[in-house]
Amino acid sequence: MERTRVVQALRSTAPVDDIQIMGWVRTKRDSKQFTFLEVNDGSCLKNIQVIVDSDVPSYSELEGINTGASVRLRGKLVESPGKGQKWEVQATEIALIGAADPEGYPLQKKRHSDEFLRTIAQLRPRTNKYGALYRIRAELAQAIHRFFHERGFYYVHTPIITGSDCEGAGEMFQVTSLDMNTPPRANGQVDHSQDFFGQSAMLTVSGQLSAEVLACSLGNVYTFGPTFRAENSNTPRHAAEFWMVEPEMAFADLKDDIDLAEAFLQYLVTHIREHCSEDLDLFTRFVDKELSATLDNIAENAFVRLPYREAVEILQKARPKQAFEYEPTFGEDLQTEHERYLTETHFQKPVVVYDYPKSIKPFYMRVNDDQETVAAMDVLVPRVGEIIGGSQREERLEVLEGRIADMGLPREEYEWYLDLRRYGTVPHAGFGMGFERVLMFLTGVGNIRDAVPFPRTPGHLHF
Amino acid sequence: MERTRVVQALRSTAPVDDIQIMGWVRTKRDSKQFTFLEVNDGSCLKNIQVIVDSDVPSYSELEGINTGASVRLRGKLVESPGKGQKWEVQATEIALIGAADPEGYPLQKKRHSDEFLRTIAQLRPRTNKYGALYRIRAELAQAIHRFFHERGFYYVHTPIITGSDCEGAGEMFQVTSLDMNTPPRANGQVDHSQDFFGQSAMLTVSGQLSAEVLACSLGNVYTFGPTFRAENSNTPRHAAEFWMVEPEMAFADLKDDIDLAEAFLQYLVTHIREHCSEDLDLFTRFVDKELSATLDNIAENAFVRLPYREAVEILQKARPKQAFEYEPTFGEDLQTEHERYLTETHFQKPVVVYDYPKSIKPFYMRVNDDQETVAAMDVLVPRVGEIIGGSQREERLEVLEGRIADMGLPREEYEWYLDLRRYGTVPHAGFGMGFERVLMFLTGVGNIRDAVPFPRTPGHLHF
Repeated sequence: MERTRVVQALRSTAPVDDIQIMGWVRTKRDSKQFTFLEVNDGSCLKNIQVIVDSDVPSYSELEGINTGASVRLRGKLVESPGKGQKWEVQATEIALIGAADPEGYPLQKKRHSDEFLRTIAQLRPRTNKYGALYRIRAELAQAIHRFFHERGFYYVHTPIITGSDCEGAGEMFQVTSLDMNTPPRANGQVDHSQDFFGQSAMLTVSGQLSAEVLACSLGNVYTFGPTFRAENSNTPRHAAEFWMVEPEMAFADLKDDIDLAEAFLQYLVTHIREHCSEDLDLFTRFVDKELSATLDNIAENAFVRLPYREAVEILQKARPKQAFEYEPTFGEDLQTEHERYLTETHFQKPVVVYDYPKSIKPFYMRVNDDQETVAAMDVLVPRVGEIIGGSQREERLEVLEGRIADMGLPREEYEWYLDLRRYGTVPHAGFGMGFERVLMFLTGVGNIRDAVPFPRTPGHLHF
Repeated sequence: MERTRVVQALRSTAPVDDIQIMGWVRTKRDSKQFTFLEVNDGSCLKNIQVIVDSDVPSYSELEGINTGASVRLRGKLVESPGKGQKWEVQATEIALIGAADPEGYPLQKKRHSDEFLRTIAQLRPRTNKYGALYRIRAELAQAIHRFFHERGFYYVHTPIITGSDCEGAGEMFQVTSLDMNTPPRANGQVDHSQDFFGQSAMLTVSGQLSAEVLACSLGNVYTFGPTFRAENSNTPRHAAEFWMVEPEMAFADLKDDIDLAEAFLQYLVTHIREHCSEDLDLFTRFVDKELSATLDNIAENAFVRLPYREAVEILQKARPKQAFEYEPTFGEDLQTEHERYLTETHFQKPVVVYDYPKSIKPFYMRVNDDQETVAAMDVLVPRVGEIIGGSQREERLEVLEGRIADMGLPREEYEWYLDLRRYGTVPHAGFGMGFERVLMFLTGVGNIRDAVPFPRTPGHLHF
């Protein structure tokens, strides 16, 4: 007999004479004549209530059934007289599939701290909160693919293992197939010419340069894949491995880029509210009371668009009434405190800061006519700060060559990239959005270690 | 003025008075009064034909416009009197965006070999073949997400960096943030306790074990992400980095797994035929004349389901008429020649071989009642061989512990995995499908170096 998923059973429009459910027992309550089970199969937040009458032939199976056990049951789906659920199952048959020793099973009914649950990542998706979080995570990924597909963007896979440090940013993991204990050496150094790729190799920090290739042929593209930082920082917002979304558009400038970022974020918020309302509600109630207002703010407001120069002026004028640890100064990057002041206090809505000083930005960003700034933009949102960073790319060959030289980058590694400017160059632009950051923002979850099922951070590689 | 993508212009249902197109010139032909341009913007295979009358004020711009140049043009979209296209543009304005020096630009009109095009991966997506291939690749990824989403599977991200060798398969890349030239040492060995994760780390070969965690909580899930093999094999079918799809279902057995694999492959074939007919047609015409028949064969036939034992018997009976390099023997893995004989010669349709000998399969596959075989299955298709491999997983704690011990695996690394069997264990099953393999199968492309925009193979890390 076919198994009915709990989400389907709960959405039923009519009673069902004979239904089969499989899932895990969340709670079990005994009364004189009946046993009540709450059964969850992960298909949705809600459990289905099951009533097992003591007359049921397999009633004795219940002895071995405790919280955490997996069960198979058959019965009638009927309207529930009780509060809190429309449907319940009157069991005609129940079977234990896999027991859960009540002495050992860590997920008993009481609430557990996030810190404790991180130590049992193999079990935490069985809790309400983490189940909901990973269902939202899944739907968010679908929403990303749908947004771009509807707009004619092609999904592309850019390399994970790379020979080049795209942003000149350092902090990259090395990849090798050499025996690290006794590697071959040449001139005293490890001889990577004998390594798998015949050279040293690293894990990517961004797929942008490769995505530019595909934008300059297919038109509009996006990546959605893992990226890596070997940054030894133990903060709630940094992981060594995280997923990034990077759209790249040909025949597009910075304004197009900002338009896309705004439409994208608003789409994601709206989509998750529509498709994950039950799961999202858990976070509104238990994790962040202001979540709804924060999401409204994104979905309903046009984003403020503010040149960096004006942003600095606003920040400078805010003092001394507003105390900052770091002085806002033209030519310096905005600090998190500055970003949050702009978006939370001054404008109280999402703010796109653009035209940043050339000196603090990577070589590939398009130099503006003032020669002092580049066509970069960051999207700042209340309660999170920066959530998207992007730019129009430098499409002029000579200017780009000059920037590579000025920054002392190894020109020969960029010849293929320069070809895009040599042959049919076009204005193009794109941005990067950290997937987990958006998930955290949508749910109010404060630690990236919880937004990822199996997080990778300094010293942590378990599971 | 808004840019119209070529794919939209070509699908127009009526003439348009004023349209703006941007793209790259594929060919330019001059006649006395006119210049004809074929312009492509990557949005589809077809170019749009543009007629520039010598009266057009910006006609002189054409001097700098050659094959490969990027252009912006405005004009009227009118019905084309010529053959081969319904619509063409009568330009009223034309502007060069980026020139392409005819001396230097490698993609002149003549056809190039795949080998040559691999050396210019930054430009090859601008050719018809590679443009079509990467558009199909993008649509195939969308189809994968849709298939699972429609069936209530949750998309999950499993770790890329891992501390464990999931399959005990070896051939893994190491990941480190240590200085490989002078790493810290303890007892003569590299001291990975000082490495980023406090232990040695590797790139994943499969997300299965982690996906099992999420299946045993969310129900049905799938991964779609990069996996890695440090296998030094230079074949047309192996890359060091490739994308895998791995569904995992709770409350499912091997039959459910085979059913899913069959439905999945048929869905993908049908989807790509419906959504990429124009691009696919290029491969039917120029790459593989039998492609259509091969795809029909998958889409229209129920897959043969054949126990491994019977497969070996069929192979043994086929001899000596059918010569094999390797003798088909119970207890040995099927060779590619065996797989192809079964699917191409004997059955001439897709074949699922199942119940393989325990001795040649990994520890996590469920031991059958005969104690000799495990609930494993491989899907074989004509012209490719194995395209999917999967199994029902061993859900019985004692049996799994025994297998881990028998195979000499480090038990302590699997404690978290064993917890899934300790607490509410359930029958579950899943499979892995190489994304590039399916793309190659769908297009007839014979070399994985072409199916990936920027392939990673031994000695090759360029771009």
